[in-house]
Amino acid sequence: MLQGHQSWSFEQKPVIISTATVGGPFEANGAIADDFDILHSDLWLGQESYEKAQKVILEESIVRSLEKASLQKEDIQFMITGDLINQMTPSSFASRTLTIPYVGLFGACSTSMEGLALGALLVNSKSANRIVTAASSHNAATEKQFRYPTEYGGQKPPTAQWTVTASGAAVVANSGEGPVVTSATMGKVIDMGLSDPFNMGAAMAPAAADTIAAHFRDLNLPNDYYDLIVSGDLGEIGLPIAKELLSEKQLFIEDDTFQDCGLMIYREGQPILAGASGPGCSAAVVYGHLLKIMREGRLKRLLVVATGALLSPLSYQQNETIPCIAHAVSIEAGGEGE
Amino acid sequence: MLQGHQSWSFEQKPVIISTATVGGPFEANGAIADDFDILHSDLWLGQESYEKAQKVILEESIVRSLEKASLQKEDIQFMITGDLINQMTPSSFASRTLTIPYVGLFGACSTSMEGLALGALLVNSKSANRIVTAASSHNAATEKQFRYPTEYGGQKPPTAQWTVTASGAAVVANSGEGPVVTSATMGKVIDMGLSDPFNMGAAMAPAAADTIAAHFRDLNLPNDYYDLIVSGDLGEIGLPIAKELLSEKQLFIEDDTFQDCGLMIYREGQPILAGASGPGCSAAVVYGHLLKIMREGRLKRLLVVATGALLSPLSYQQNETIPCIAHAVSIEAGGEGE
Repeated sequence: MLQGHQSWSFEQKPVIISTATVGGPFEANGAIADDFDILHSDLWLGQESYEKAQKVILEESIVRSLEKASLQKEDIQFMITGDLINQMTPSSFASRTLTIPYVGLFGACSTSMEGLALGALLVNSKSANRIVTAASSHNAATEKQFRYPTEYGGQKPPTAQWTVTASGAAVVANSGEGPVVTSATMGKVIDMGLSDPFNMGAAMAPAAADTIAAHFRDLNLPNDYYDLIVSGDLGEIGLPIAKELLSEKQLFIEDDTFQDCGLMIYREGQPILAGASGPGCSAAVVYGHLLKIMREGRLKRLLVVATGALLSPLSYQQNETIPCIAHAVSIEAGGEGE
Repeated sequence: MLQGHQSWSFEQKPVIISTATVGGPFEANGAIADDFDILHSDLWLGQESYEKAQKVILEESIVRSLEKASLQKEDIQFMITGDLINQMTPSSFASRTLTIPYVGLFGACSTSMEGLALGALLVNSKSANRIVTAASSHNAATEKQFRYPTEYGGQKPPTAQWTVTASGAAVVANSGEGPVVTSATMGKVIDMGLSDPFNMGAAMAPAAADTIAAHFRDLNLPNDYYDLIVSGDLGEIGLPIAKELLSEKQLFIEDDTFQDCGLMIYREGQPILAGASGPGCSAAVVYGHLLKIMREGRLKRLLVVATGALLSPLSYQQNETIPCIAHAVSIEAGGEGE
């Protein structure tokens, strides 16, 4: 049901009945390593290319999420995925393997919540009984795509973020036990004129603030409604900017209540510069780490604000600034069995 | 409402209240030139790059579709678009200009119907009052992306297709006059092992046949339900293959009833090899040409089957075959005022 200008409320309470996450070697040394279902020690995963490795982690996360719910792929009506690689190569090739009817998305790092929002909407409107949505990224595939092959050993400024090698998948169903998707807000593209692909946090912060403000306005929520708001991924540079922008909009969120997935996935001391990023980051942190905490009863109301920088290597070369977007999804602890 | 395995029926009858199409110089010499709202004589549209030119035709098609419905962009809840260019550069940058909450898609040439299906679903489920969906392509931008810059003058085999320079947009609303979106079928990825990017029609034909068969099965329709089925874009090579595959599935469609958008947009004698292609082709042919015929009362029931080849230059270089998909949308003449 449309709420306000750009939000949906899900009165049928679509349930996240299963999630699974897969990570790479860098993530295996991170802060939430224990929350991954599968961890790989080899960035290549035995594949011939990084893109094929990314396809494999995406497939593994989806297959494991189905296994954990004791479902076959035939039990799932639609697969809703996207990634950062040109023409969504990992997603398209994973959907070839899985042969589930496929809704391909593009939202850069906002894809995780774009997919969860649309998936919940399909279930809520009885357009699907069960869907699977996933988002993935691969550090070396992304660096090659957007900047330089990592083998070149290029230096980066401290404002740059480290792309996560991870995939997170979620099965959303019309019944079952688990966290409930209660509402979503789809973002507008915001571009404040920044053009530095090594400082995406600052570029994306205004989009995050705009979507969060729209969410509270459309759903008519009090400032303290959520126990936790997480962005994905603003990093050390972007998060304080987003907080400042929300204050300017008279939306005052407690400092501890607004955190960032890009600052949660790695340990202190890992050389990640301003924080983590990539579609797989928010997917892994939310589906692996935060929903585990929610299932344990230690988190009731969570708003995930996945932020995407919709630049391309081409638009950068053509001296364009960076259009940014953020999609927000509200996830709340389920009633039964939680 | 989910119907069968992978289809939706739209019982609230979402209406296509307005459409607009924009074409380039090659399209201005084509068979349906009179049906375009705007035609450009310059492939650059006065822009510095072909990608920016594509962004402009996309924006123009959306703005014109709103003008024709006497709507402001604030009257539209969501903009649902995608294209073939890396990281959806034209779509992302057009959504920056238009500032309508943005759902980014990737479906290659199937994007037109992926967007119309999701847009109709949003309106049908009361998740939006009005949406705009559009798909675009630009010949020179696509050639540069997938093959060689056209300035190189590379030769092509007769199985290759000509990417259309066009954009088509449709406004779907919960009330008003116009053709009605009655159902949709979302495709699975099918890959029969073909790997030649100069023969996409043959690669995509099995996906088209699979989705058409699923559509008739899920909706339980008689073989002669539609006055016209159009694929977009199988071309001269793919269309007979799709017909043959449907016969093998015991789904017999009258020969004249199954046509292809890629064989409708240009005149005989234009050097288009096996036919036209590109996300903008089916969007322009359906939104500009076929819905005009429907509004004139000369077409009642139309099934559009947009086919996408989900390859990337990268997957081709890595010796991968071409995963293909097709999404089908049923459009029927509206009750009142038609």
